[in-house]
Amino acid sequence: MTLPNGLTQEAAGQAAARAYELDRRHVFHSWSAQKALTPMVITAAQGCYVWDGAGHRLLDFSSQLVNTNIGHQHPKVIAAIQEQAAKLCTVAPQHANDARSEAARLIAERTPGELNRVFFTNGGAEAVEHAVRMARLHTGRYKVLSRYRSYHGGTETAVNLTGDPRRWPSDHGNAGTVHFFGPFLYRSQFHASTEAEECERALAHLEQTILFEGPQTIAAIVLESIPGTAGIMVPPPGYLAGVRELCDRHGIVFIADEVMAGFGRTGKWFAIEHAPGVVPDLITFAKGVNSGYVPLGGVAISPDIAATFDDRPYPGGLTYSGHPLATAAAVATITAMAEERIVENAAEIGARVLGPGLHELARRHPSIGEVRGTGVFWALELVRDRATREPLAPYGGTSPAMTEVVAAAKEAGLLLFVNFNRLHVVPPCVIGESEAKEGLAILDQVLSLADKHTV
Amino acid sequence: MTLPNGLTQEAAGQAAARAYELDRRHVFHSWSAQKALTPMVITAAQGCYVWDGAGHRLLDFSSQLVNTNIGHQHPKVIAAIQEQAAKLCTVAPQHANDARSEAARLIAERTPGELNRVFFTNGGAEAVEHAVRMARLHTGRYKVLSRYRSYHGGTETAVNLTGDPRRWPSDHGNAGTVHFFGPFLYRSQFHASTEAEECERALAHLEQTILFEGPQTIAAIVLESIPGTAGIMVPPPGYLAGVRELCDRHGIVFIADEVMAGFGRTGKWFAIEHAPGVVPDLITFAKGVNSGYVPLGGVAISPDIAATFDDRPYPGGLTYSGHPLATAAAVATITAMAEERIVENAAEIGARVLGPGLHELARRHPSIGEVRGTGVFWALELVRDRATREPLAPYGGTSPAMTEVVAAAKEAGLLLFVNFNRLHVVPPCVIGESEAKEGLAILDQVLSLADKHTV
Repeated sequence: MTLPNGLTQEAAGQAAARAYELDRRHVFHSWSAQKALTPMVITAAQGCYVWDGAGHRLLDFSSQLVNTNIGHQHPKVIAAIQEQAAKLCTVAPQHANDARSEAARLIAERTPGELNRVFFTNGGAEAVEHAVRMARLHTGRYKVLSRYRSYHGGTETAVNLTGDPRRWPSDHGNAGTVHFFGPFLYRSQFHASTEAEECERALAHLEQTILFEGPQTIAAIVLESIPGTAGIMVPPPGYLAGVRELCDRHGIVFIADEVMAGFGRTGKWFAIEHAPGVVPDLITFAKGVNSGYVPLGGVAISPDIAATFDDRPYPGGLTYSGHPLATAAAVATITAMAEERIVENAAEIGARVLGPGLHELARRHPSIGEVRGTGVFWALELVRDRATREPLAPYGGTSPAMTEVVAAAKEAGLLLFVNFNRLHVVPPCVIGESEAKEGLAILDQVLSLADKHTV
Repeated sequence: MTLPNGLTQEAAGQAAARAYELDRRHVFHSWSAQKALTPMVITAAQGCYVWDGAGHRLLDFSSQLVNTNIGHQHPKVIAAIQEQAAKLCTVAPQHANDARSEAARLIAERTPGELNRVFFTNGGAEAVEHAVRMARLHTGRYKVLSRYRSYHGGTETAVNLTGDPRRWPSDHGNAGTVHFFGPFLYRSQFHASTEAEECERALAHLEQTILFEGPQTIAAIVLESIPGTAGIMVPPPGYLAGVRELCDRHGIVFIADEVMAGFGRTGKWFAIEHAPGVVPDLITFAKGVNSGYVPLGGVAISPDIAATFDDRPYPGGLTYSGHPLATAAAVATITAMAEERIVENAAEIGARVLGPGLHELARRHPSIGEVRGTGVFWALELVRDRATREPLAPYGGTSPAMTEVVAAAKEAGLLLFVNFNRLHVVPPCVIGESEAKEGLAILDQVLSLADKHTV
């Protein structure tokens, strides 16, 4: 048996055994207690599939960490990386190079409004760090507002903006961050019964928060256009326009965090396009910009904020800002996504296959409390009890029921993205109908295990 | 004329013109006022040389941002990137893969003591962010000490640890950082007249700072083993051992920042090896680990600190932690550096050519106040007056004299790394004797311009 990368399974298996042994001896893993880890070795990947050390093929409904929007090992992106490697791997950020310039042009063409200047970083956390710094210096204010149920990155400012329990160990109350509640009808903070009511009340709550914090103290509001890891809560129509209006009224910078939702994930280039006419002041991006083939992130900047740094130095940077290899991968990724209509595919698969398929599952599985999403960005909210909406795992934790479902899916050949009581269905944007249906069939099978835990 | 990457100069020139135009329209640059920028386009690079848009070849005494330790476009590293790209570009950090495991093993083999666990990041700033988080959670303390005249990165915690003016716009006094003075005999804070006296007094000053801050409030001391951008002040014998002893006495974590000094730059794998027997608790690295061919950084962790996260989750991470393409480049870089004795070359060129050559220049150029360094890590402290040591540009600024020298060097085909009143001679570790002498000859020529500004 031969893997897509040309390795025999025997060679891959031996390499995987060594990789596992060295990993357990030398690799310190993200967000984990280290001792009990038993990481799966990935030896190969192609399109929507990955292969583990034993040669099992798994359908990747996680897109790894929701980053391989173009699928694994896209030949055009691989070729571009190989060509750029032969040409020029790295230059310092103060110089210019063609790969960086071209990537900036392609991104600027796609951002809404006139967000035509791009500051490149290595990933999403740094993008958020720098966007916040730009907003603070542009406004001369310090505080930044973000929502509970959000994720903005692992570095100090980014993790303090995060609205999930991963913030707590780094939160000393001194990062200048304030959290508010966003719209989420299924678990409404506002006792709303319709999306319109949730929208109206969430905006009123945000306005009250701004007034009580003092508008003149607030540099920015940072919002994932559609919150990702926190639960894929598509904002109700009018919410983002309302946030934009509040920001305009109070001179607050609106930062749209599109690290997970951007570059095709929601069936648009940017998720903010689902709110037509709403243009943020800064957009942070990473992941889908080059599907994570080479680490890359960045901030798209409005003319107004860019002008703040026309004559005054922007006080931030990094050695690999606008790295040639990373930006060459972005050029190839964006070009291929446009040529092959991959964003359109994500929209269509969402509307025609994943959306209807997941709603169909919800009709037959009492453990599904709600189905939410768009494009290839879907969440299943699993519950013990549809009436009380009691989650199948507590906020910030897991449960034997969740662990059982995810393990059974993996055993059946399906990789899922899991957070607390939710399964996220977030395959690559290139997924075809038959692959989507293959995954839905496995979900159908393993959700029966979750159903056993319902009342 | 054909460039090393096979492009004709005509094609490269056209690409460069377009790159420049798009750069000025769409790229937002690090650490700069944007309007007046006129970045040099780099179209090709090989070994110790880069080519600009007009086809001029420049000897790279900057190693870009002191990161291309193995030189530009090393064929073994290029081949490894191309092979890994064909095999597997990206996996999520919770899985395992052979490139990451092997890179961790090769790094662990080279770190001093038992720093055998590696947490991978995208670059140096993130490495410092995570090292500080580990130290805070390991000790249960918050404050972190670092020195004036230092650089630790551009994100919130890292820039607040930084001891140069780039910190100021992000410093709100709430990051939990405290700065002290390190040993620097040429501009001694301690009125010392010998290195031994400077060492003793700098340690006494650090001890006093610790006592007055309250040892039980201090999580970590972060020090560049040899400060880089801040001036390549090689610490006097005994200083780092003294810091280690103070940390041990007070239960403080010792973080050695080797982002710039590590991986061969000083003629050792790690600069801390110049202080035999001194083992820090954490080492941060980036740049030289794979010469920046693919963005990569990380933290090497002591068994004691790793054990803190055996059963308790480490609350930090990033999508590209241990990225296969980045770590494959590290495996190839470290392997080639070992096989080709590149670290030994850096030591030898420093001892036999660069050190003697720079000291010889100092004998003939009154603008050189001091020559400092080791390996391929040298600083020339330029002064108006050797007696008063008045710098040729003020702290935090530049001057017509400095600008003139750097422009003349570039015109003559030499790229330098500049900071305030200092020229840094920081070529790739692979530099040969004739290349080193070529650069020294240009320095000799342009330093005459600096001499004109002396009293």
